[in-house]
Amino acid sequence: MKQIGVGILGFGTVGAGVAEGLLKHREVMGRRLGVDIVLKRVADLDITTPRGVEVPAGVLTTDAAATIADPEVNIVVETIGGTGVAKKFVLDALKAKKCVVTANKKLLAEHGAEIFETAAANGVDIYFGAAVGGGIPIIRVLREGLSGNEIESIHGILNGTCNYILTRMENEGLPFDEVLRDAQKLGYAEANPSLDIDGFDTAHKACILAALSYGFQPKLGDVQVEGIRNLAGEDVKYAADFGYRIKLLACVAKCGDEVEVGVHPTLVPFSHMLSNVNDAFNAAMVKGDMSDYTMYYGRGAGRAPTASTVVADIGDIARNLAHGETRYLRGIPNYDEGKIKLRSPGEISSRFYIRFMVEDKAGAFGTIASILGRHSVSISAANQKSGSQGNQPVPVVVLTHAAKTSDLEVALAEIEASGVIGAKPVKLRMI
Amino acid sequence: MKQIGVGILGFGTVGAGVAEGLLKHREVMGRRLGVDIVLKRVADLDITTPRGVEVPAGVLTTDAAATIADPEVNIVVETIGGTGVAKKFVLDALKAKKCVVTANKKLLAEHGAEIFETAAANGVDIYFGAAVGGGIPIIRVLREGLSGNEIESIHGILNGTCNYILTRMENEGLPFDEVLRDAQKLGYAEANPSLDIDGFDTAHKACILAALSYGFQPKLGDVQVEGIRNLAGEDVKYAADFGYRIKLLACVAKCGDEVEVGVHPTLVPFSHMLSNVNDAFNAAMVKGDMSDYTMYYGRGAGRAPTASTVVADIGDIARNLAHGETRYLRGIPNYDEGKIKLRSPGEISSRFYIRFMVEDKAGAFGTIASILGRHSVSISAANQKSGSQGNQPVPVVVLTHAAKTSDLEVALAEIEASGVIGAKPVKLRMI
Repeated sequence: MKQIGVGILGFGTVGAGVAEGLLKHREVMGRRLGVDIVLKRVADLDITTPRGVEVPAGVLTTDAAATIADPEVNIVVETIGGTGVAKKFVLDALKAKKCVVTANKKLLAEHGAEIFETAAANGVDIYFGAAVGGGIPIIRVLREGLSGNEIESIHGILNGTCNYILTRMENEGLPFDEVLRDAQKLGYAEANPSLDIDGFDTAHKACILAALSYGFQPKLGDVQVEGIRNLAGEDVKYAADFGYRIKLLACVAKCGDEVEVGVHPTLVPFSHMLSNVNDAFNAAMVKGDMSDYTMYYGRGAGRAPTASTVVADIGDIARNLAHGETRYLRGIPNYDEGKIKLRSPGEISSRFYIRFMVEDKAGAFGTIASILGRHSVSISAANQKSGSQGNQPVPVVVLTHAAKTSDLEVALAEIEASGVIGAKPVKLRMI
Repeated sequence: MKQIGVGILGFGTVGAGVAEGLLKHREVMGRRLGVDIVLKRVADLDITTPRGVEVPAGVLTTDAAATIADPEVNIVVETIGGTGVAKKFVLDALKAKKCVVTANKKLLAEHGAEIFETAAANGVDIYFGAAVGGGIPIIRVLREGLSGNEIESIHGILNGTCNYILTRMENEGLPFDEVLRDAQKLGYAEANPSLDIDGFDTAHKACILAALSYGFQPKLGDVQVEGIRNLAGEDVKYAADFGYRIKLLACVAKCGDEVEVGVHPTLVPFSHMLSNVNDAFNAAMVKGDMSDYTMYYGRGAGRAPTASTVVADIGDIARNLAHGETRYLRGIPNYDEGKIKLRSPGEISSRFYIRFMVEDKAGAFGTIASILGRHSVSISAANQKSGSQGNQPVPVVVLTHAAKTSDLEVALAEIEASGVIGAKPVKLRMI
């Protein structure tokens, strides 16, 4: 059986998981793929701290450059993270005509074009299956399993931290801040949680999914991103009263030559598969024009699940190399030739959940309903949540039929100006 | 862009879907895969009945042999079905060194060895992604996306007819026979529904999943297969009272050098993702030692979803051929070298739902409980479903902790012999 050598750069959480997977499953992968994948080098500045995996003598090194240059290393795995040396080493490896596997979505988001061009120029593969969805092979599915489909839409729960927080807010009736603090203590959220809870991590992934589906790379800055930081516990509860759970969803959808890409806390009905994705699990529901709805569910992060996907990428490349070929799989394809545009947020049509704090006076709800109606926003359900106490505003929740976002925004501004509500309305999307 | 030609044998439901997919998505697949996939021939004895897809002039033919021999046809798609001419044409195509795509699980189940050997001998690929899960790329996932995992278990809802019937039995409180008759009228079930409702279709698929996961091909005759024909509406209801739905599950799991393969109506808790897979949808929950739980959901049958997966297989082969290579992907791998054995059904451990019809006399339940206890079957919950009317036996439902199947069977035989129950107990697995 032909031997293919692997060099790992970065012996952190994921790097150690990849080393462990390669060592543990060398035999079974050999049987499955017909190639003997050998861990040749693991490079890190710190090679003494134990990582919970026993690497054979001579494999650990502090010399990344020598790892890349080693003629026995055919595949270079970048698990350093960030965009500093990780970028340099990835480019060096590609220029040395080594195939590369990375899970570094920040690197791809910021320097993807340069990296994919370098791979193409050197005729070698770069795989990045774990950049979205961790242990869920969603990138492989979009690239290969659904290659014969026009992708109509993708709705994804792509950030485990947010989903964990939302699940606990719903199940325990706790406010966001309290669950976040607890999640930080338990290691489910970073000390600086903004990348997760403000939706940017999800948005990075949505951009990659859009690129894979449509050959169109939206600029992150142009994508509408709402996180869960300002989500009120009462809206989680009111949504449940109507039969919905609130999930932070990435939405990628095609309408003619326009692509909608956005990240929003979204009401998902209990009966929808995505509403049953709880805790730190991720999932993506993909609608293809031939496949209809398919869904992919699993752990979106963590040492072993992420390593599972990195190792599968290594397996693919190793099988290719054993057949004497490398093959540039287009990285993130960019084949739309300028035809496809990002849909303007105001143009997007959606159902909405709106909570008004209505002043306790006669005719207030009538005013709201008639302003909504005048702007083509039609109400599908409404619920006044409790009786007034003294002269306090009363929460009134309205669910709408599908409406154009810009129409709704004009209506809400008019309602605010009318003086019948005591605070800015809360507006959430519905699936 | 290099052209790769496709010839379809069999212009039935799936064949027409494949033709439609190839024609409709030629351009987008070209952009994605870097190869121009051209429908060259569609062969069928009947080329006049409309199939809802417009095939270019000259493509339709009644001559399958000429289609296989056509030098412009690089990939032969078999969508005839059955094991008669389908087998002959598949073997002829492989011997003519054409790569083959088929979704014919019966052909693979009965003649897989011969077909895969012929493919290997001729150095060409055979893909069969749509043989399990229709539009869900589960075969691709097991083969590639999870290649770096030891697969610990797979639990799958793999038959849409059964899942449709079970969903309606639960939602509408109807008995099996009535739902079956309606499903036949609506086209969800065949006139002769045995292959579906008696579990054999699911068992075929379970065997393919076992083979892909463990390189071990169980004989269909050795696999325990229970269908849903005898499932009583009251058990569906009682299960729901305990918080469970009944699904027909394929179970494939590894315990050391033994593999468990079986098909059983199984209680799945409401909180489990599989319990929310309704109607004709399919899903498979796969536990890998690195990936942890992942799940794949979608339509397991139908013209367009099945064609989606067939077209993806065509895309893979076409990309390979455009790079000047065919590559034998082992068909269904058989690499266990005789080490792996099918686990004996009696040895399998599971939780169980048991419904006893208990004679209305003092001490009856005590007798049952003590016999179960004596055989190491411990009770986790029990519920007497309603008061006795006259001297009628009363349904008593018992949920057990995990118990060895053979222990439970001995206990149930002893309970029957004790005379405290009025009918054979109903025994269902729990997940």
